[in-house]
Amino acid sequence: MNTSFKLSELSASYRNNVQAELKDVIDRCPLHLRSILRYHMGWQEEGNLPGQGKSGKLIRSTLCLLSCQAIGGNPAQIFPAAATLELIHNFSLIHDDIQDASYERHGQPTVWRLWGQSQAINAGDIMFALGILALLRLKQNGITDEEIMYSFRLLSETCLEICEGQYLDIAYENQFDITIDDYLDMIRRKTAVLMAASTSLGAYLAKAGEKTAYFYQFGEELGMAYQICDDILGIWGTPESTGKPVNGDIQQRKKTLPVIYGFKNSNDQDKTKLEELYSQKQIQEEDVSTVAMILVHAGARDYAQNLAKQHYRQALKYLEASNLDKACLTPLREMAYLLVERNY
Amino acid sequence: MNTSFKLSELSASYRNNVQAELKDVIDRCPLHLRSILRYHMGWQEEGNLPGQGKSGKLIRSTLCLLSCQAIGGNPAQIFPAAATLELIHNFSLIHDDIQDASYERHGQPTVWRLWGQSQAINAGDIMFALGILALLRLKQNGITDEEIMYSFRLLSETCLEICEGQYLDIAYENQFDITIDDYLDMIRRKTAVLMAASTSLGAYLAKAGEKTAYFYQFGEELGMAYQICDDILGIWGTPESTGKPVNGDIQQRKKTLPVIYGFKNSNDQDKTKLEELYSQKQIQEEDVSTVAMILVHAGARDYAQNLAKQHYRQALKYLEASNLDKACLTPLREMAYLLVERNY
Repeated sequence: MNTSFKLSELSASYRNNVQAELKDVIDRCPLHLRSILRYHMGWQEEGNLPGQGKSGKLIRSTLCLLSCQAIGGNPAQIFPAAATLELIHNFSLIHDDIQDASYERHGQPTVWRLWGQSQAINAGDIMFALGILALLRLKQNGITDEEIMYSFRLLSETCLEICEGQYLDIAYENQFDITIDDYLDMIRRKTAVLMAASTSLGAYLAKAGEKTAYFYQFGEELGMAYQICDDILGIWGTPESTGKPVNGDIQQRKKTLPVIYGFKNSNDQDKTKLEELYSQKQIQEEDVSTVAMILVHAGARDYAQNLAKQHYRQALKYLEASNLDKACLTPLREMAYLLVERNY
Repeated sequence: MNTSFKLSELSASYRNNVQAELKDVIDRCPLHLRSILRYHMGWQEEGNLPGQGKSGKLIRSTLCLLSCQAIGGNPAQIFPAAATLELIHNFSLIHDDIQDASYERHGQPTVWRLWGQSQAINAGDIMFALGILALLRLKQNGITDEEIMYSFRLLSETCLEICEGQYLDIAYENQFDITIDDYLDMIRRKTAVLMAASTSLGAYLAKAGEKTAYFYQFGEELGMAYQICDDILGIWGTPESTGKPVNGDIQQRKKTLPVIYGFKNSNDQDKTKLEELYSQKQIQEEDVSTVAMILVHAGARDYAQNLAKQHYRQALKYLEASNLDKACLTPLREMAYLLVERNY
């Protein structure tokens, strides 16, 4: 059991262990799809390409293990659950990249760009199946059958929400009358429930009992804040900070929070311009900065940043409400800060 | 417990119960995707369309429940497992239809045709997640946690094979050097393992113990025979018998058994013609009958029918090897006959 409470040390150690667990599980994957998954995870070169190199931030597994540690559990016992969270997240990313027609992730071509849409669908599907296999590995670490069954229920219900959130995200691209409440409901499903599952699963498996609910709410609020920040970065971030092509969200006419707010709160002239641009099938590159400027002018950026901060503060309140020793919670608080404050 | 051994009565009763179980589970699905799934299952109208009406044959759940009954178990106890098999099968069908660009299933537009590829990906994904939730329902029927964990392992390993089989099926469309062994390995993964999982899961949950392995092998061999028959029907069947558009397999250049055999065993002139036709991106409608004739001429149809029969007979041998009372096995034998002899 790790006795250090320093976030940087904990997360480096978790990262190595979760990667090892993921490699073990993905090695169980049949031959052809295995090499696609290894590419997606950034572990191998594809043909003459340099390989993705960057492997994603393992945010969900880190949140899970930090929550386990905060409760006083043994993170090493639940590495398989942490791996399952990453497999679910990555299954949805592979499918997401097809749906959004994203060309790059972490600066490398997405799976569907290299293998085509059909094989990318298969790759995502098999990653989902590997998530189930990974969870079963908890048994050999001494987690009880009942706890594993609880984990299956939590994660499958989480997947239902993720898929519905993804449905809404896509559906909203062609709708104009999206309200801020619609948006918040969508990101809760698409992003926040998996963060909530991550923190609560870590706590639950560390036998947090009734305190598990606080960890769920902490993760959910943090996930809301995280997604709002992501949407801000999707408009005003740099490719270096996001790992995604700049302007993608605007070009794809994503109805993110700043856009919804901007539509509602622009002056008549700006609103007409926005409507004109968003009624095209895709927004042209030369119009992206116009959109971004109109949004700033409407106060959309400030509004989004404030809302992210509110959710972040609410997340910390739930953590405090757990009444755990402050020192135990420090790494989780630091992690939350890193996730949300990255663009301020 | 059902005491009748007549296949028609058993399967009608199973069908109603599995449908009820499926409806219960799919009702747990969030709103928007739920209506897509209900459409796919043939339960509701979509806009002004007449609704699919036909709901699929529920082959896998019926095999599972017949196997349970053959061992002397109580099928009603394992309806959730039967539902999971159908959810897995249907998740793969929804994705399959995108990958094959199939326009129709059961004479109605496929999900991606109505909602687009992106939402069809989501619909398949959520059906997979519902399969996990359905399996958890076994607990309230008195199945032990250990048995449920076994079921999770069996089904997730099955999904790995299905995805890899699907990978190979798609990859083979653009390869010319596919051998019959390649093909058999592909259909074993794509089709036979889920049939094997169906029969063995039914037997296992009925506490078949060591006899479970015979049921696995029975299902696997039956699945091989079934898929070969399906491939024969894909070339020489009628849309009425298959529920799929005629000629689809040839037009899409699917490397099914008759095609692989035909390539190998045609005379030089026919082989040149085949190679010419199969080097196009899609085979034109007017050339489909030429391909079918060349294949008959090469003896491909006879060869495929014989191979299907061999697998069918092998399936029955495994069933006999279980040493169960003949009367108990009769419905399973009849079901196997129906699945394989449908095109003779």
